Amino acid sequence: MRFVATIHVRPRREVRDPQGDAVAGALRSIGLAVDGVRVGKEIVVRFDAANEGAARETTTTMGKELLANPVVEDFTVELRADG
Amino acid sequence: MRFVATIHVRPRREVRDPQGDAVAGALRSIGLAVDGVRVGKEIVVRFDAANEGAARETTTTMGKELLANPVVEDFTVELRADG
Repeated sequence: MRFVATIHVRPRREVRDPQGDAVAGALRSIGLAVDGVRVGKEIVVRFDAANEGAARETTTTMGKELLANPVVEDFTVELRADG
Repeated sequence: MRFVATIHVRPRREVRDPQGDAVAGALRSIGLAVDGVRVGKEIVVRFDAANEGAARETTTTMGKELLANPVVEDFTVELRADG
């Protein structure tokens, strides 16, 4: 089966997010009063797996081994069958 | 009213995504056969607005004026009341 996973990688709540601070500053500079800005990544991946359980395991491996830095980032996965 | 918006910024479909290609290569190097990898950003923002219409307008301004480069990126917005 073919799957599409979206892996959301976000800075952990307790970690400072300098990129978010920079975006907040830039938004304020164009007149928008914002706070609590956080910047994460989303990685969309297509792959084959025997079934949904195997696919979910693969996405966990992707997040843990490569996409997220566990010291400063969390990740969540949205998984769906492709097509 | 207080709102939280998540602005998803993604490379346009017809545009090459070198970051996605790099991630695909790295995932393959740890034994995961993937393709069609695309890397986007997600920006979470908190702000005040009179109502949902005004809030949505603000997020459109954020996306258009600052967060997305319209030549190579698209953006979508998820908006909800905070708390």
